[in-house]
Amino acid sequence: MNRRPFNFSAGPAALPEEVLQQVAQEMLDWHGSGMSVMEMSHRGKEFVSICEQAEADLRELLAVPPQFRILFMQGGGLAENAIVPLNLSRGGKVDVVVSGSWSRKSAQEAGRYADVRIAADAKSNGQRAIPAAAEWQLRGDASYVHLCSNETIDGLEFHELPDLKALGCDAPLVIDFSSHVLSRPVDWSRVGLAFGGAQKNIGPAGLTLVIIREDLLGHALPICPSAFDYKTVAEAQSMYNTPPTFSIYVAGLVFQWLKRFEYGGKTGLAAIEQRNIDKATLLYQALDHSALFENRVAPDCRSRMNVPFYLRGTHDTPELNQAFLDEARERQLLQLKGHKSVGGMRASIYNAMSLEGVHALVDFLKDFETRHG
Amino acid sequence: MNRRPFNFSAGPAALPEEVLQQVAQEMLDWHGSGMSVMEMSHRGKEFVSICEQAEADLRELLAVPPQFRILFMQGGGLAENAIVPLNLSRGGKVDVVVSGSWSRKSAQEAGRYADVRIAADAKSNGQRAIPAAAEWQLRGDASYVHLCSNETIDGLEFHELPDLKALGCDAPLVIDFSSHVLSRPVDWSRVGLAFGGAQKNIGPAGLTLVIIREDLLGHALPICPSAFDYKTVAEAQSMYNTPPTFSIYVAGLVFQWLKRFEYGGKTGLAAIEQRNIDKATLLYQALDHSALFENRVAPDCRSRMNVPFYLRGTHDTPELNQAFLDEARERQLLQLKGHKSVGGMRASIYNAMSLEGVHALVDFLKDFETRHG
Repeated sequence: MNRRPFNFSAGPAALPEEVLQQVAQEMLDWHGSGMSVMEMSHRGKEFVSICEQAEADLRELLAVPPQFRILFMQGGGLAENAIVPLNLSRGGKVDVVVSGSWSRKSAQEAGRYADVRIAADAKSNGQRAIPAAAEWQLRGDASYVHLCSNETIDGLEFHELPDLKALGCDAPLVIDFSSHVLSRPVDWSRVGLAFGGAQKNIGPAGLTLVIIREDLLGHALPICPSAFDYKTVAEAQSMYNTPPTFSIYVAGLVFQWLKRFEYGGKTGLAAIEQRNIDKATLLYQALDHSALFENRVAPDCRSRMNVPFYLRGTHDTPELNQAFLDEARERQLLQLKGHKSVGGMRASIYNAMSLEGVHALVDFLKDFETRHG
Repeated sequence: MNRRPFNFSAGPAALPEEVLQQVAQEMLDWHGSGMSVMEMSHRGKEFVSICEQAEADLRELLAVPPQFRILFMQGGGLAENAIVPLNLSRGGKVDVVVSGSWSRKSAQEAGRYADVRIAADAKSNGQRAIPAAAEWQLRGDASYVHLCSNETIDGLEFHELPDLKALGCDAPLVIDFSSHVLSRPVDWSRVGLAFGGAQKNIGPAGLTLVIIREDLLGHALPICPSAFDYKTVAEAQSMYNTPPTFSIYVAGLVFQWLKRFEYGGKTGLAAIEQRNIDKATLLYQALDHSALFENRVAPDCRSRMNVPFYLRGTHDTPELNQAFLDEARERQLLQLKGHKSVGGMRASIYNAMSLEGVHALVDFLKDFETRHG
C-alpha cells in the first residue's frame, strides 16, 4: 500500500495507521472471542478487560493521581458545557476565562445553571493572546473556574495552567482539554476536573473523557440527568448506561500506541510531546518567515495542536484561498480549510500527525508562495 | 474462515458478518478518500454523504413520514429517559405504562422533571403480561404518554401500539423501541416520538436514534442542555455537537444490509420481520414443549427479540444454570446469561441472528434436556 495522505482535520482527526490496521484485523474476532468488540456485552469479561486496561493505560500516560476518577462518558464538549455546571456549580457562581470560541460557548451554556462571570476575555487582545492570569477578575466564592486549555478554532493554548490558589482563589479549576489531551503532561495539582471529546487526540467521536477529583463527586443539582451525574457514573465504573464500547476500545489501542511511542530518545508522553514541539516549531517558523502566509497568535500563546493561518493582506482573496486548498488536496494534504467562523486555513497537527506530514505541508507552503506570492 | 459463533448478547449485540467485513475493508481508506471514516471531519462532504444516506435509508426502511425528523444523538436510552421529559413534559404531567424494567426506569427519571403517574403496571400481572390498554389510567391533560415497546430484560413486547385517541387521550405517545427497532414496521399514526439506543439492532453503542414529529420540537424546558434540545439538534441536522460519526457509518451499512435482505420471498423490513417471526416461533415452541426449560410470558406479549428462559422448578439450581452456560459456550453459543436482576438465561435473537443460530440453540436445549432433564 502507498503512503496514506496527510490528514490535517481538526476533528474527528487522523489516527495512527497501526491502530487502524489492528482495528481492521480484529474486526470479526477479538482475541479469539468469536466476537467483534462492537458485539460484546459491556458487562462481559472481554469488554470489562478492554475498558479496565484502557483506563489503567490512560492513568499511567497522564500520571493521573489516585484521588482522581476517570470516567468514560458521551456527548462531547458541548454536552459537558451543561454537564459540568449541573454537577459542580451548586447553583452558585462560575467564573470563566474566555480565550476563544470554545470557552465562550462554555460560559454561555453555564449561564443556564449558574451566575456566570467572564473573568477575562481574549477579545480584549484581539483574540491573539490569552489575558495574563494576574488580570483575571475571579470571585472568591465561585463554585469553580473554567478555562479551555487549547482553543481548537482560535489556536491559543495555555502552556502553563494557572495556580488559582496563588491568585487568591480557592475554587477548583475546570479545564476543557479536548484538543490537546495527551499531547503533553497535565499538572493535576492545579486541576479539579478535566474533560475532553475523544475525536482529536484519542479516538472516534462519541466518547467523552472526564477526569475528576473525588471530592467534587456528589454535588449534582437535582435536575441533573442520572446518566450525567458524575457520582452515579463513577460508582458504576462508567457503566451506568451502556458506554460507547467500540470507541473505548479504539481509544485503548491509541493509549497503547502512545505508551510504546519513541522519539528523540524518549518514550511515551514525553516522546509525543517532544515531537509535537518539533512539529509546531517547524510550522510556525515557516509561517513567520513567509511573505504570503501568517499566523496571528502571540508566540507564547500559540497552540502546538491547531495552527490557523491566513493569506497576508491583499493576497487574502477567496480565489487564492480556494486555490491553496485545491492544490493541497492534489498533494494529498487533506482537510486544511479553516473553521467557517474565522475562515482562512488551519492545520491541526495532533499526536497522530508525523513530522514527515508537517514537512510536506511546509514544503507546499514554500512552493505555493513561489508560484503565487 | 470457520463459521462465527452464535452470539445471543442482549446488547451490544451481534452484527451482520458482511457489515463487519465491509467495515474492516474500508478501515484505512473509505471509498478512495484516503481516510478512515473515524478520521473525517463531520462537516466534510464525505461524512455528510454517509450521514445523509444513512438517514434516507432508515426513513425508507421504517416508512417514516415526512412530518417526522430523524435525529442521531448520544447517551442511549438512559439519557433519553431525562432528555424526553426535558423536551416534551413542559413541566406538566407524564403518564407511563410500566411493562418492565426499562419503562420503570423511565418513569423514575421523568419524575425529576414532571408529575408522573404510572398508568398501568405489569407487576399486577406478575410481570408476565402487559396490562390491557382499556385499563390504563390516562390523564386527559398529560403532556405525553410513555411506554417501552419491547422490554429487553423481561421479554415483553407490544405487538400493536395503542391508539391513544381511541382511549380518549390526545397526548402524543412516546415509545422506547431500543431493542426491537427495525425488527418490524412502526405505525407512525400512533406515535409522537420514538427513541432507541443503537446497540441492539442498529450498530455500535454510543449512537441514539430519535424520531420525532415536527410539532413536538421547540418545547424544551430552559434547563435542557442545548446539546439535547431536539429543536437545536434538528436544525443542525444532528451536527450541533460532533455526532458519533463512526457509529452512524456502521448503522448506515446495517441499513443497506437490511434493504437488500431477502427471506421467504420478501425483501427488506418485511423479510427481516418474517425471519424474526420464524426464529421466535421456533424458540418459544421448543421452550413450551420442554420439561426442563420454560418461558413465563403470556404468549400474546412475548418478545420476538429477547427470550428469557429458566430451568423449571427443582431443576433451577445455580449449578445447573452454570452448567448450561458453560456447555453453551463450548458449543459456540455465546452470551446466553440472563440479566442479573432476573437471573436464568436469555436468548436475544435480533435481526443479525440467523435462523441457523436459533436452530443450533434449540438443538442444544433438547440435547441438554436429554442429559440433565
